[in-house]
Amino acid sequence: MGKKISKTDRIAVITKTLVENPKSIFTLNHFAEKLDCAKSTLSEDMDVIEDVFRRFHLGEIHSVPGAAGGIYYNPKLTDSQIEAICEELCQRIKDKSRIIPGGYLYMNDIFYDPNVLQKIAKSLAAPYLGQKIDYVVTIETKGIPLAIMTAQVLNIPMIVVRKSARLTEGTTIQMNYVAGSSRRINTMAIAKRSIPKGAKVLFVDDFMKAGGTAKGITDLMKELEAEVVGIAVVMATKKPSEKLIQDYYALLEFDGIDEREENIRIYRRVKQEE
Amino acid sequence: MGKKISKTDRIAVITKTLVENPKSIFTLNHFAEKLDCAKSTLSEDMDVIEDVFRRFHLGEIHSVPGAAGGIYYNPKLTDSQIEAICEELCQRIKDKSRIIPGGYLYMNDIFYDPNVLQKIAKSLAAPYLGQKIDYVVTIETKGIPLAIMTAQVLNIPMIVVRKSARLTEGTTIQMNYVAGSSRRINTMAIAKRSIPKGAKVLFVDDFMKAGGTAKGITDLMKELEAEVVGIAVVMATKKPSEKLIQDYYALLEFDGIDEREENIRIYRRVKQEE
Repeated sequence: MGKKISKTDRIAVITKTLVENPKSIFTLNHFAEKLDCAKSTLSEDMDVIEDVFRRFHLGEIHSVPGAAGGIYYNPKLTDSQIEAICEELCQRIKDKSRIIPGGYLYMNDIFYDPNVLQKIAKSLAAPYLGQKIDYVVTIETKGIPLAIMTAQVLNIPMIVVRKSARLTEGTTIQMNYVAGSSRRINTMAIAKRSIPKGAKVLFVDDFMKAGGTAKGITDLMKELEAEVVGIAVVMATKKPSEKLIQDYYALLEFDGIDEREENIRIYRRVKQEE
Repeated sequence: MGKKISKTDRIAVITKTLVENPKSIFTLNHFAEKLDCAKSTLSEDMDVIEDVFRRFHLGEIHSVPGAAGGIYYNPKLTDSQIEAICEELCQRIKDKSRIIPGGYLYMNDIFYDPNVLQKIAKSLAAPYLGQKIDYVVTIETKGIPLAIMTAQVLNIPMIVVRKSARLTEGTTIQMNYVAGSSRRINTMAIAKRSIPKGAKVLFVDDFMKAGGTAKGITDLMKELEAEVVGIAVVMATKKPSEKLIQDYYALLEFDGIDEREENIRIYRRVKQEE
């Protein structure tokens, strides 16, 4: 390097490495080698980083003790940060120019924007950061960008369920399911090798109406001897209030569009306790 | 805050903010307020961060002078970092267990893994970091996770071209094109409002054979008075060597599978100069 490595240098390198790899554990040895310093020195540096992340609400820095131990960044938002993100999202969604004939909302500018998605993904992942989850599962197409960014926050791989079997994915399991709102029969297919038995998955999607897709994914996972341990969507419709699945986590509640008054009824979802 | 904000605190906060938002400019005022300190102090902090990022090859920290000025993180990999990523990717792809009857390769574990994708996206974005690009464009489905992560590196939105028009996206422009390898006629569709006239786009995909899709996207963009200024794919096939488009950037070259010997021929692509 030539130049001596200072404390501020170490703080910058460690912070950069941790933040760019959420939920990845880095050992003290990793940094000791890279930064040419004693592990005791590093411990002090990490205390500094842990402390400043806590004070400034930048997420959490965790230490894992033991031989396989180390340090990692947990991109956990505070409740009030999540509230602010949901509030901002509601304001953006209320924009009348989104209304598409037929009662649809144009949402591509939100669900295809990496900056917005990063915030939504962190909000959506928040309840699951402490849980043992192996995969994020979604169904093509619109939810894919959101799902991969949620997978990044949780540091786990994603699986995409297709609407028909693909030659390029080898043996597939295919299943019919009933779309809850339209009562139409749809197909979903998944590469058999993409999910090991016993895997725990989080289903992520942009939108949920009656929950037919979420129910279908739950059944498909059972078929593969895997288990859906969470269902997280950005928006769930207010009606029907009885969904085909019991528990789900939604950031926002959508109560339709008043097309005459051009009013988009979208709110922060208040979770109903049993 | 209670506790005094030290230099190491400031370095951690600034590094975290910049790294989590690649290519987003933050003003000195933003940090001066947040960290309760003079702009001259911040300038010194930023010099420290700029210097350590350069020495440790962590990407670049850039200052933008002037009234709209500030500082941003440019996630630029060095050539040797890109080489290492491509080499690792080749090794992973050579794994015989990927071979699917019909001469396909199972790739979901690579293209749906956020950690791997982050590295590929940075490698793919590298030549375009200094260019004026407005959107990353891809076609559904497999390239979407890669495209959104490339869009994140470049800090621009993504556009997904669909294989058929969707009710939920409003007015769409639909076009037929010839898939270069199979000579089959396919359809692509895009929401009319998703792309403004004059926009410059980078087409990103996982795989390119004859270049029919890339050519189709180029024509579709012309139709919308937008312009493809770059084509970046992870793997391009060796044959046909004459593609339907002239210039493209590929990380790897794929020369087919010897199914008898179970040998997957994949290499780092050496760019041909004119």
